[in-house]
Amino acid sequence: MATNAAVEIVEVGPRDGLQGIGPFVPTAAKVDMVERLHAAGLKRIEIGSFVSASALPQMRDTPELLRHCGDALPGLVPQVLVPSRRRASDALAAGARCLAWVISVSEPHNRSNVRRSPDESAAEYEALAAELPPGTFMRLNLATAFDCPFAGRVDEAAVLAMLDRLVPALPDAEVCLCDTTGRADPAHVASLFRRAVARLPGTAFAFHAHDTYGLGTANVHAAYEAGVRVMDASVAGLGGCPFAPGATGNVATEDLAWMFARRGVATGIDMDRLVAVARDAAALPGATAGGRVRAALAAADRLCGTAPTV
Amino acid sequence: MATNAAVEIVEVGPRDGLQGIGPFVPTAAKVDMVERLHAAGLKRIEIGSFVSASALPQMRDTPELLRHCGDALPGLVPQVLVPSRRRASDALAAGARCLAWVISVSEPHNRSNVRRSPDESAAEYEALAAELPPGTFMRLNLATAFDCPFAGRVDEAAVLAMLDRLVPALPDAEVCLCDTTGRADPAHVASLFRRAVARLPGTAFAFHAHDTYGLGTANVHAAYEAGVRVMDASVAGLGGCPFAPGATGNVATEDLAWMFARRGVATGIDMDRLVAVARDAAALPGATAGGRVRAALAAADRLCGTAPTV
Repeated sequence: MATNAAVEIVEVGPRDGLQGIGPFVPTAAKVDMVERLHAAGLKRIEIGSFVSASALPQMRDTPELLRHCGDALPGLVPQVLVPSRRRASDALAAGARCLAWVISVSEPHNRSNVRRSPDESAAEYEALAAELPPGTFMRLNLATAFDCPFAGRVDEAAVLAMLDRLVPALPDAEVCLCDTTGRADPAHVASLFRRAVARLPGTAFAFHAHDTYGLGTANVHAAYEAGVRVMDASVAGLGGCPFAPGATGNVATEDLAWMFARRGVATGIDMDRLVAVARDAAALPGATAGGRVRAALAAADRLCGTAPTV
Repeated sequence: MATNAAVEIVEVGPRDGLQGIGPFVPTAAKVDMVERLHAAGLKRIEIGSFVSASALPQMRDTPELLRHCGDALPGLVPQVLVPSRRRASDALAAGARCLAWVISVSEPHNRSNVRRSPDESAAEYEALAAELPPGTFMRLNLATAFDCPFAGRVDEAAVLAMLDRLVPALPDAEVCLCDTTGRADPAHVASLFRRAVARLPGTAFAFHAHDTYGLGTANVHAAYEAGVRVMDASVAGLGGCPFAPGATGNVATEDLAWMFARRGVATGIDMDRLVAVARDAAALPGATAGGRVRAALAAADRLCGTAPTV
């Protein structure tokens, strides 16, 4: 499959990257990050989530950010995560036009994540789909589509069954299979996406990779080879891993941008601008940064001689 | 290509990983590292190099290490790097039975690395091949087979031309294509190996990946899919990058072992033992460590709840 079809990288740093940071990142700093990411070529940015402010205080200014994007960044698609029909309703009332629903394939993860059984979350999604205002774009995130921190490897059949149920509810939704724990391997990613794409050829698929075990870029490349053209990533690899404190989390936006640039796949991203935002993002108080490209590019001009090496 | 054929991981940490470390790592510590790596299932270990002790003082105890392996670790294949016919002769005299020759495809890198033109290095290799004692195993490393720190992307045709010249000199040699700078991308790796394997179907190929730009595991996976079954790696990702000071270097042995284990490919490696060596290796004074799996596994047992995430 020697293709060079373009890829859309969806920036999830302001949401998935920042949500786990203890110290509150001032709204002005988030605005600055979103504006600079947009200027670097990111056209869709998950700017936050509509969730309990007591459970996730870092996300409490999502409505303000959403308003700012509407006023100041007309070319940007701000995406917001919603875990329930009620929160989706709040988001729509606040002006959101791009929602990201989250449901876990694995029962224990869905209960831990959104306090519902997968069946309850699925039923809420169906109800939401039926009442969605025209012009709303829906991203359907299937968390733990490969592996669950509580239950281990997730059967491909369980993912396909959930797709069979949820895709017909809103056939235009973009479906993202999420490697929540970072424990998917490239063959697993390729296999599941090949089966999903073959089963639902009219569906737009996306992939959400974590780099916790060093397989972020490998898995994204496998998804690309399987036909996926939308990839989530977090600037500076921000995010850590809630299930592995101290380990890194989301695959870094700049690492994906660099990989695709090297292989001649267009992303529309300005690498210099992106790396500049990534450096500042990595330095945020409380941040756990990942990614390799920042350090490599910073050092690449400082060539030095060396003794025999390969 | 859904195969699960076994892979041999060749540990190059004691050579590629340690050579750039300033403070001398005591021979006893190197012995301990090699013994523990062997106990973790690494069957071939590049223990050092025969090079100028003034240029690369860290490698000055390679003869001692080699002697120790011969005496104490009969099941281990100790591999040593040699940059010239004279050094190869020294290595053979010291008891080496597995040599790793290095020649760069790119002219400026070969001159910088071994002070010769590629043509001169090729002629020396041919001469060495003709005089090699029976029973000697030769690894032929083609450095800068994808990208050169001085000249940029390397043409696939130049690599194939070098193979056309050097493989016939010693058809039993194992040929390793090395991504010296870490700037290869998975499509490049797959393309070059597919062409090389198709051109020289009787040759055993290996891949030497660097993780400088975060593509180490992605590139190794691409090589595997292209049919390569021998992969170099460095414990704890030791090595840094001589061309990008401060950046990480070799792909980490534990990251490869983990990736292959997840996809059901046998490596013969005991993960717990390997990670224990890797933790100590990463803590060596002066070391630049890479890899993700150490931190992820250390944290994986400390599950904690979290608010909605994907």
